[in-house]
Amino acid sequence: MSLWVRLLRPVWLVVGLLIVTCLAGAAQSDPLPSWNDGPTKQSIIDFVGRVAESGGADFVPEARRVAVFDNDGALWAEQPIYFQLAFAIDEIKSMSSAHPDWANEQPFKAVIEGDQRALAKAGEHGLLAIMAATHAGMSTDAFDASVEAWLKTAVHPRFKRPYTALAYQPMVELLYYLRTRGFKTFIVSGGGVEFMRRFAEKVYGIPPDQVVGSSGAVKFELGDDGKATLIKEPKIEFIDDGAGKPVGINRFIGRQPIFAFGNSDGDQQMLEYTASGGGARFMGLVHHTDAEREWAYDRNSQIGKLDKALDEAKARGWTVVDMKNDWKQIFVDR
Amino acid sequence: MSLWVRLLRPVWLVVGLLIVTCLAGAAQSDPLPSWNDGPTKQSIIDFVGRVAESGGADFVPEARRVAVFDNDGALWAEQPIYFQLAFAIDEIKSMSSAHPDWANEQPFKAVIEGDQRALAKAGEHGLLAIMAATHAGMSTDAFDASVEAWLKTAVHPRFKRPYTALAYQPMVELLYYLRTRGFKTFIVSGGGVEFMRRFAEKVYGIPPDQVVGSSGAVKFELGDDGKATLIKEPKIEFIDDGAGKPVGINRFIGRQPIFAFGNSDGDQQMLEYTASGGGARFMGLVHHTDAEREWAYDRNSQIGKLDKALDEAKARGWTVVDMKNDWKQIFVDR
Repeated sequence: MSLWVRLLRPVWLVVGLLIVTCLAGAAQSDPLPSWNDGPTKQSIIDFVGRVAESGGADFVPEARRVAVFDNDGALWAEQPIYFQLAFAIDEIKSMSSAHPDWANEQPFKAVIEGDQRALAKAGEHGLLAIMAATHAGMSTDAFDASVEAWLKTAVHPRFKRPYTALAYQPMVELLYYLRTRGFKTFIVSGGGVEFMRRFAEKVYGIPPDQVVGSSGAVKFELGDDGKATLIKEPKIEFIDDGAGKPVGINRFIGRQPIFAFGNSDGDQQMLEYTASGGGARFMGLVHHTDAEREWAYDRNSQIGKLDKALDEAKARGWTVVDMKNDWKQIFVDR
Repeated sequence: MSLWVRLLRPVWLVVGLLIVTCLAGAAQSDPLPSWNDGPTKQSIIDFVGRVAESGGADFVPEARRVAVFDNDGALWAEQPIYFQLAFAIDEIKSMSSAHPDWANEQPFKAVIEGDQRALAKAGEHGLLAIMAATHAGMSTDAFDASVEAWLKTAVHPRFKRPYTALAYQPMVELLYYLRTRGFKTFIVSGGGVEFMRRFAEKVYGIPPDQVVGSSGAVKFELGDDGKATLIKEPKIEFIDDGAGKPVGINRFIGRQPIFAFGNSDGDQQMLEYTASGGGARFMGLVHHTDAEREWAYDRNSQIGKLDKALDEAKARGWTVVDMKNDWKQIFVDR
């Protein structure tokens, strides 16, 4: 062995180590490990790369990297009933001992007895009565506490796990990925804003002020002791669905998104609004195609109906996630 | 000179340099250089230190360090008229050539002729007409552009400088200081949210989604070309003032602040709400006491009346900024 080789050997060792480390880093650095490789995953990674690349033609400054996500059916599951309705039903049951009159009063009787037919018959009027009884007439603090207690104990009827464990792992990864690339992530959902705020930070890493949703009126009250309370009133103030979503985005976020993800016709206007801005834009829909691991539904579903928005997505080349084929795994323990 | 002294001399040089550097660093690191030293400045620094000190009795996790600020009279000046009203008046004047009918129609005639008496006579009804004409009937994009154009060219009548140069430098420093200590800073103001969003990021470092304010309704419209627009309607949707401020905080922020700054009775409920949370809390008022460098007004002012909130602040030991004595400088070029 020549002197040169002996002298250089440590250098080659270091170079070799660096190469191994880099390769390992590249393998580990897949930002979306729960997504199968393919055009859907690639469309996301390509878009993010283009808008985040300094000096690129599609570069967007960080302050304008606003990403909005529907919640029910887009970030977590929504079957067999919206999880917020499951909360309301459980609340009615646990409140019923203090309301003996409910035993003979619809829609409460139907809820207590688990009478799906009578509940369906009570219709929208019945639903509003259930929401008023469980979402109003208490302080915001008391409501928050009831949601938090429910999230800790309630179990999904099919999957036998907490509702927060039915968040979609691929979408949680997408939220984190976007944030590491300078995006600010928001929920824009028809769900109740105060309900979603109780888990959005822990499950999605989205703080309360970045949650936009439907809301009821609240009233300021000052006690004799000088202590202020906000009381939830049985009055709907804002429905953050359909054409209400762009309105909610304008009201709460004040900036047109460049990235939007939904899963139903209620998200169509949010995607249209996102698409209307200048420059690069990403519009995505989660298509529920996996009856085995989750559910399969679209045009004829009572919940999360996806019909017109699916047609528009296809016509305009928006990204449609095929849950069965695009997602390697859906749920993880939380 | 002994050998030891000679050997140690470089060490002492280094030690000396370190001491000088540290002292200079301490002098430079005053986070609030535009505030005079004294109990007001100290109350702020003490509070921030206590809640940010890991392991301390008053420690507050970063996610809960929410700080809210009124805007008019708390972050920038509000005399002789609210700056947003100055914008509306200038807009009426520049729109008047396209509205020949305004020459004979109040309150527009009064605005065009600069007739303060007739304008005052038009009262709240006149004010609403002025706001409707200048803040509705156009797209949100068109409104944003008109505000931005005005901010670039309009000049304050007394100080002969752009309105954004009438932001209070001590308060801008306070906003930056809080953010460096893990606070999230929000505006919670009676002013129009879409108006404030046009300068809050540049002047205060507060992004659009962290601005809470009064708002009018907007309507989603989809053109035949598939392009979505939001149209501002002449309908007030939310007044973020008085008891509306805690309501707005709940709606937009979703978390009780631990730090609040206002300057008028319209901020009283926001301070009461902030004070009502558990743990360490900071409540502050800017008291306008400096007729020479700014203005002096409180209990009898038409604008920014500070009466009941001042009494409550004194009774409850809230911090009251004496502008004349507590602020070293008020305005800087921007």
